Amino acid sequence: MTHHPSTGTHPRTPGPRSAGREFFTARTVADALAGFRPARRTTVEEVPLADALHRVPAAEVPAAAPLPGFARSTVDGYAVRAADTYGASEGLPSYLDLVGAVRMGAAPEVAVRPGAAVGMPTGGVLPEGADAVVMVEHTAETMPGTIEVTRPVAPGGGVVRADEDVAAGAPLVRGGRPLRAPDLGLLAAAGVTAVAAHARPRVVIVSTGDEVVPPDTAQLHPGQVRDATASALAGLVRDAGGDPVVAGIVSDEPGALEDRMRAVLPGADLVVVSAGSSVGARDETAGAVAALGEIWCHGLAIKPGKPTLLAECAGVPVVGLPGNPLSALVVFRLVGVPLVWRLAGCDTPPPEPSTSARLARDLPSAAGRLDVVQVVVRDGLAEPIFGPSALLSVLTRADGFLVVPEPATGLDAGVEVAVTLYR
Amino acid sequence: MTHHPSTGTHPRTPGPRSAGREFFTARTVADALAGFRPARRTTVEEVPLADALHRVPAAEVPAAAPLPGFARSTVDGYAVRAADTYGASEGLPSYLDLVGAVRMGAAPEVAVRPGAAVGMPTGGVLPEGADAVVMVEHTAETMPGTIEVTRPVAPGGGVVRADEDVAAGAPLVRGGRPLRAPDLGLLAAAGVTAVAAHARPRVVIVSTGDEVVPPDTAQLHPGQVRDATASALAGLVRDAGGDPVVAGIVSDEPGALEDRMRAVLPGADLVVVSAGSSVGARDETAGAVAALGEIWCHGLAIKPGKPTLLAECAGVPVVGLPGNPLSALVVFRLVGVPLVWRLAGCDTPPPEPSTSARLARDLPSAAGRLDVVQVVVRDGLAEPIFGPSALLSVLTRADGFLVVPEPATGLDAGVEVAVTLYR
Repeated sequence: MTHHPSTGTHPRTPGPRSAGREFFTARTVADALAGFRPARRTTVEEVPLADALHRVPAAEVPAAAPLPGFARSTVDGYAVRAADTYGASEGLPSYLDLVGAVRMGAAPEVAVRPGAAVGMPTGGVLPEGADAVVMVEHTAETMPGTIEVTRPVAPGGGVVRADEDVAAGAPLVRGGRPLRAPDLGLLAAAGVTAVAAHARPRVVIVSTGDEVVPPDTAQLHPGQVRDATASALAGLVRDAGGDPVVAGIVSDEPGALEDRMRAVLPGADLVVVSAGSSVGARDETAGAVAALGEIWCHGLAIKPGKPTLLAECAGVPVVGLPGNPLSALVVFRLVGVPLVWRLAGCDTPPPEPSTSARLARDLPSAAGRLDVVQVVVRDGLAEPIFGPSALLSVLTRADGFLVVPEPATGLDAGVEVAVTLYR
Repeated sequence: MTHHPSTGTHPRTPGPRSAGREFFTARTVADALAGFRPARRTTVEEVPLADALHRVPAAEVPAAAPLPGFARSTVDGYAVRAADTYGASEGLPSYLDLVGAVRMGAAPEVAVRPGAAVGMPTGGVLPEGADAVVMVEHTAETMPGTIEVTRPVAPGGGVVRADEDVAAGAPLVRGGRPLRAPDLGLLAAAGVTAVAAHARPRVVIVSTGDEVVPPDTAQLHPGQVRDATASALAGLVRDAGGDPVVAGIVSDEPGALEDRMRAVLPGADLVVVSAGSSVGARDETAGAVAALGEIWCHGLAIKPGKPTLLAECAGVPVVGLPGNPLSALVVFRLVGVPLVWRLAGCDTPPPEPSTSARLARDLPSAAGRLDVVQVVVRDGLAEPIFGPSALLSVLTRADGFLVVPEPATGLDAGVEVAVTLYR
């Protein structure tokens, strides 16, 4: 009876062969986030405004001209010289000659001389000579050709200046910050219909394992599982503004992963290897990566997710994830997502939803390790979901997660915790 | 001199003609969210898993078979009968016959009889006869064909049951809740490669105003402004999972908006009219909507954004927005975004990022009105950005917004406020 039956395949069984190869250059998550900062950035491309939401501008985009571009009324009313309204009141109104009206979208056809007023729609161009617009509510038009002003207006009242929204040369949007909906509006207002932005990072997802079969496999043989992690990772990549490329499943055959990585590296900004979860599978990933580049860390002080590998191969960052789907997704969310944003030129990812809640029960934890705990939040109470990290349903049932930081040896029931919510 | 110069166009000037037409059926924002609930839902379509992120399943998707589908090892180790390990210790290990090894992705070739053990990789199929897997760390293989177990394992230890992730018939995902990345994983694990989900709501955006020109207009004539609101609204619609259709700019010509609405209603799930901000323009929107359907409210107790209109025309909800871009976007975020989610079958939109901060200065407010205040957050301090709602840059400079609720007459500097953050 031999430990490794001669099956002709590469058995992932434990035993002396893995002793000494379980070499971990372990890091804390904070170390990994601060220290593993590949220099790679995606190329810059011209993106039409309609496709630019959440894209990251490569540089500040300055305004070519001031906005709104002309002194503009902010109310319905009358353009006046403010001084003509000083001292006006209900009892003693100022009487002004109504000399015309401004039309929307057109230049004023008449100036405002002392003692005169011009009808103004909200958004109209302030006529020459006027320095304020008095609201229609503070006027009366009792005789044709004359208005009564019943409340004074200060110079500049009821008006935005020609450069009050954005001055010429001032930034419309900043480089490095993903574009939000109002940014698209400001760019449109300035006539900018395309923006130079970083390309979406191409994130190539490689799954490994003799037991793993494609999701569209109708009938499973005993011991087979469908590839869950690749589809979920693709979703996280999209959420981070990346372009996921699901590159299929690699067998545990020695050399197979290295061959696949060689093939995908040239077209990738980031390679994610969803490794088998056994010791042998981890060895295989580490071996392939070591042959192609440099391992920055092998092992993170995080639970779940310890057997994580961070490396750089031919200028492309590589993340080797644990085999359990839950562990893989927890680690990718914490370490991979900021990396995808960074590849697109954004060093500070957009904020995530969170809430504060009271912990429903004690949470033990080992000091020196970051614990990521999935929770359900109900009525202000965060209830941890316990379960092996082999169970993906722990993650789909959760409303979010909390973190027990490295120094803590646990959290007591009843303490206030910050829960990052899934969306 | 006449108040309305005979220009042949429709002047947006104030005056007696608008008196009495400024009829507002004002509502609170809470009223609007609770009461304006159109029954319309988008059609249901089959969506491939790769495109299903954040889509809303029309109904619960049950698992056809249990997951993982077989009792599975969660550790590298040895499949055993738990009873054979009882009392085992470093000093007095249990000795078991090593009778074989399980290969990944294959059925076990050997059963575990009393006194025997089988080598197990993480994720392997538990052989017949075994009820636990002892971790390799708690064993030693000192003689070929025999292992020593140095710590006992309980029945079920190191194993997930065949239906522990999801039982047959149990929901993989729920109806009405947008799909998150891990949901895609669980669906893939179950072999579900497409899901019946609500179509993205088609949100038709109609801009109005003689002064408004398309964003790609290179040179503006005096008084013209480029359409900023449509591009920004399109971004908010996308963020809410909708499919924005920018339907161009309608002049202030009487009847023009009604004609355009008649044309777009049949292909829309929601029509958003970005109206001119003057009284005349608001009249025009209300008139067009009243001719085509029923106005539910005209006027919201919100600042900015009071002149908001909610209506239903031919079964299609219609949102008439204020003319100022800032006001329009504030209102659409609060009232329009939940509507887009609802049209797609999701009654509880995903959570938004938020933070708590101390208010940097006093904020006055009128009781009975919801005030939405844009803020910059620095070092835990929320600094309000004041400025006319004609300025879109107020919104692009903000990190988020806070709300002064209806009953409050203001907030004092130093109080703790909840800030909804933009992402």
